[in-house]
Amino acid sequence: MKVSEAGEFGLIELLCRELGIPYPPSAASPPRPGFVVDLGDDAAVTEPAATATIWTTDTLVEGVHFLPSRTSWRSTGWKAIAVNVSDIAAMGGIPGAALVTLCLPADFCVEHAVDLYRGMKECCDSYGVVVAGGDLVRAPVFSVTVALNGSVPKSGTDDGFEVLRRNACRAGDAVAVSGTLGDSAAGVVLLQGAATPRTNAAARLVEAQERPRPRVDLGRRAVEAGVRCGMDISDGLVADAGHVARASGVRIRLAAASVPLSSELRSEFPDRALELALTGGEDYELLLCAPRPVLQGLIAGGADLTIVGEALEGEPGVTVIGEDGKERAYASAGWDHFRSRDG
Amino acid sequence: MKVSEAGEFGLIELLCRELGIPYPPSAASPPRPGFVVDLGDDAAVTEPAATATIWTTDTLVEGVHFLPSRTSWRSTGWKAIAVNVSDIAAMGGIPGAALVTLCLPADFCVEHAVDLYRGMKECCDSYGVVVAGGDLVRAPVFSVTVALNGSVPKSGTDDGFEVLRRNACRAGDAVAVSGTLGDSAAGVVLLQGAATPRTNAAARLVEAQERPRPRVDLGRRAVEAGVRCGMDISDGLVADAGHVARASGVRIRLAAASVPLSSELRSEFPDRALELALTGGEDYELLLCAPRPVLQGLIAGGADLTIVGEALEGEPGVTVIGEDGKERAYASAGWDHFRSRDG
Repeated sequence: MKVSEAGEFGLIELLCRELGIPYPPSAASPPRPGFVVDLGDDAAVTEPAATATIWTTDTLVEGVHFLPSRTSWRSTGWKAIAVNVSDIAAMGGIPGAALVTLCLPADFCVEHAVDLYRGMKECCDSYGVVVAGGDLVRAPVFSVTVALNGSVPKSGTDDGFEVLRRNACRAGDAVAVSGTLGDSAAGVVLLQGAATPRTNAAARLVEAQERPRPRVDLGRRAVEAGVRCGMDISDGLVADAGHVARASGVRIRLAAASVPLSSELRSEFPDRALELALTGGEDYELLLCAPRPVLQGLIAGGADLTIVGEALEGEPGVTVIGEDGKERAYASAGWDHFRSRDG
Repeated sequence: MKVSEAGEFGLIELLCRELGIPYPPSAASPPRPGFVVDLGDDAAVTEPAATATIWTTDTLVEGVHFLPSRTSWRSTGWKAIAVNVSDIAAMGGIPGAALVTLCLPADFCVEHAVDLYRGMKECCDSYGVVVAGGDLVRAPVFSVTVALNGSVPKSGTDDGFEVLRRNACRAGDAVAVSGTLGDSAAGVVLLQGAATPRTNAAARLVEAQERPRPRVDLGRRAVEAGVRCGMDISDGLVADAGHVARASGVRIRLAAASVPLSSELRSEFPDRALELALTGGEDYELLLCAPRPVLQGLIAGGADLTIVGEALEGEPGVTVIGEDGKERAYASAGWDHFRSRDG
């Protein structure tokens, strides 16, 4: 069924059903916990909280950020929520309420919108996100925009709200990353050449691209352990380390040999694994900078972290030391949405 | 200059300049009041507030919601903020922080983006909105999505947060609207036939369409006076009264002869004025329902309100009594983004 046949309100009803929210809301159904006014009015209203609030938004555009011929609508729904959750994780916060805007061509299939919401719901449930509302508009091309808030509890020992900032790296800090890097970029390569027969390893790389798992728990644990500098790796390690270096006024030196690579990446891309890990985007892992003992303490406590470099005094920017001990050159500009590729 | 030439970060810098926000943020510049972390990190962080929070979002798509050949980018910027402010006003709240997402073709002119931000800034300044962040993405067609929060102060006399809901109209309530209706819809008609020579009256109708002025002060005053039911008129009076009627389980009877019409609308559209006022959209005036003495009290206090009908027991829906005293029929479905016009 096309959305032009379902109509705006018919579609809203279907999508709310996916989220488990009654629509239209009846006077008999009380608002969900934390809501003064639930979805279905001019706007949603939430109760006050004693926490600081984080604000972020991210958009996925068909043909720019994903190809429906390659990636299921359900995975796109997961990712639309996940990329926003990652920004909350990157601040050391806890995800909260989301506003979801769908731009839809009139002949867009309702079933695809329902699949999209199914994937969004899976991600929302995984991370405790509630959908507070949104907007449906007609447009020549599909896009989904999610605005997400998150909370920062008060720190135990003082009156402030401690978060992971980009500008808080100090010379002498160690630099660590979570998980493994490059898997998502490898997934893009595999999706672009869909004719390749798929191995289990390849399937896991594609899943890293389509269903990223933001590091909310690690972000909170890092803040609680005293880490004050961090961001999520969405533009690629070298580019994102460059963001931290310039915001903090330090030089970050990365040791290529230390960068964590998955066995899947090594087996599928033996010649390009390191390159993908250093420059590929969309890992949605965390980059953390703190005094070495703080990061070692997190690792000793079981955190999935690897120390990959250090911050030094010097001209702000990034130096990569190759496995041969020599300095490697990388363009420092990083991902640019307008200059890149066919832009 | 094209955005592909300015690049993502060059464009962000230009747009922040329009907003009067330093970018990239330096460690030396403290965050703006109310912010723990200002724009420029993974996400913005705001301080806790003792108020309930309102959440809304609205999108304008080129070719669907406006035509750049007819409406300036500056006016589109104003409207992108204003339509969201109107949702906050419709809840009886005070606008707060906005996230702005621009979807831009790579060959989009930077100058147009700057003009858009100039108009957004004018509207932000008029209503006390601060931009907390956003997203810039490449897309085949221009759109701007604004997610806006607002606050609801605690009511003076009790512990609750009183707002204007759609489902709080009771049989016996009077129904009032602010300002005049139909001007914005008349503005659309004028914009569609741009060859027509423009009178001062016509220019004011176009301005009503391009630069709506949401009723934030009136929304607050209404809540403080005890009004508990209201919404903004964005889909047309009959359609929006229908939303209230169905959400509240009442029948709303509107007296066509009472609907406030501007002298500009009467002079430019003598034959269609009432039709435009009853069914035209995008007035962004308020529809308020409350016991008659409450509304009369607001009017006596200087509120720009006109009583246009009443709520009755009966099948939920809307009845319009024409100037001849006879009932007039209107399709009750209202505006549908996907079924309408060329959809």
